[in-house]
Amino acid sequence: MHGLNICPDLDTVVYTLARLANPTHGWGIRGDTFECLRGLAKLGAETWFQLGDRDLATHIFLTHRLRSGAKLSAVTSEICNRLGLRCTICPMSDDRVRTIVRTPDGKLPFQTYFVQRHAQDRVLSVAFDGAARARPAPGLLKAIREASGIIFCPSNPIISVGPILAVPGVRRALERRRCPAVAISPIVGGRALKGPAAEMMASMGMEASALGVAKIYKDLVDVLVVDREDEHLVPAIENLGIETRVTNTIMSGIAEKKALARVAVRALEKHKSVQ
Amino acid sequence: MHGLNICPDLDTVVYTLARLANPTHGWGIRGDTFECLRGLAKLGAETWFQLGDRDLATHIFLTHRLRSGAKLSAVTSEICNRLGLRCTICPMSDDRVRTIVRTPDGKLPFQTYFVQRHAQDRVLSVAFDGAARARPAPGLLKAIREASGIIFCPSNPIISVGPILAVPGVRRALERRRCPAVAISPIVGGRALKGPAAEMMASMGMEASALGVAKIYKDLVDVLVVDREDEHLVPAIENLGIETRVTNTIMSGIAEKKALARVAVRALEKHKSVQ
Repeated sequence: MHGLNICPDLDTVVYTLARLANPTHGWGIRGDTFECLRGLAKLGAETWFQLGDRDLATHIFLTHRLRSGAKLSAVTSEICNRLGLRCTICPMSDDRVRTIVRTPDGKLPFQTYFVQRHAQDRVLSVAFDGAARARPAPGLLKAIREASGIIFCPSNPIISVGPILAVPGVRRALERRRCPAVAISPIVGGRALKGPAAEMMASMGMEASALGVAKIYKDLVDVLVVDREDEHLVPAIENLGIETRVTNTIMSGIAEKKALARVAVRALEKHKSVQ
Repeated sequence: MHGLNICPDLDTVVYTLARLANPTHGWGIRGDTFECLRGLAKLGAETWFQLGDRDLATHIFLTHRLRSGAKLSAVTSEICNRLGLRCTICPMSDDRVRTIVRTPDGKLPFQTYFVQRHAQDRVLSVAFDGAARARPAPGLLKAIREASGIIFCPSNPIISVGPILAVPGVRRALERRRCPAVAISPIVGGRALKGPAAEMMASMGMEASALGVAKIYKDLVDVLVVDREDEHLVPAIENLGIETRVTNTIMSGIAEKKALARVAVRALEKHKSVQ
């Protein structure tokens, strides 16, 4: 956007862990201002993709460092260090991969489909442009190999987790994992916790349910955490060879988030001890 | 700066004519905020070059358009149109030219010398990197050829007007002008109206006076407007074959600016009628 490199999911993860995230939007920085965007609007630039002034600093910094030859994974570490994060945040790849959504109106870049057109188009398929040639970021496969546990957060399995799985080597590393893996279903009662996951799954001919999620993650996870509302799907999910945990997965606040995280971690530990 | 193309003089001209300029700084936009710069500082980027959020919109827009293959002159016209300007603002060139200041500490990019190091270094010489290969922007030589009058504003003759004169063809076009040309001396009583002009001229072995300015502009202007304080220099300036107008050139407000502009325009008209 505006010639700047933007990695929306990566940014949101960084901002969230740095306690900078906007709690209501699900993107951007809390209390951010939009003066630069207003200036861009005055100059006739497209402004449907909201970029706050503080948020822009990240994109300007990243773009400059990438153009100077730095790798995305290295710049992500720099940003994390600067924001005081002690954990490692590893992007899926240092290579450029773009999510393209095929609709009856043609191919659309993901943010055009999602933000500009409000996820209204029917999704025929999703492609990850560049993924076939992308290499996993340094340390990513090693992290999977040496992990003591893997959690698939309740993200959109097609367009948030899907691109990661499309990077050659990642799916195989997850299939060959030596540790337990737990996923949390992002679909509750046929609706997504957030975003267009349910509509995308349905229009791509998948079952928009926790069972549909289980099918996507088959061979990749040992346990699927599902909402109480989806308890009736448990037998069908376990039939796929995936254990289940049933709990409240709707995170209305920080307490619910922590409780859900605890369920996932406990599932990892439990599964490990029985392996 | 931060991978963005910035043309400080061009921006200031545009902002001033669009009535957006910050009246006290001499750069940037009135009432601008600095949230993005604060974000960049947090990420460890250099922030000695102040860039406001609204101002950044111009640089982001320009950089994006240039990277997409647009020419500086074309983007400048787009920006002017968008900001409601009806006059034509023509940059000296669509090619990249950078001002480099040679000091006892080595070569410094101009903004490093001027902003970061507060113009404290002794200036041995000034070079315009890329000027020898630069071509005048489309329409520039034609504008000089067809002008009914030319005014050299009281800018720094070395680093503001100098780069323009260094573009091959521009000096010659000005020497062969078919209309009168008037300059306003930026040096009053040996001091610059603004900025480091006097110090630069002195440290480069030039006379830091209206007479020194007259020597730099010899053959390029017919009339030099000098301050009352410099009336004693009039005979020496006229000896160079340059007419003079003596007036108050210190612009403490809009009234003084208008009065000085009127003196310059009247000098053009007068000189034309006697040609």
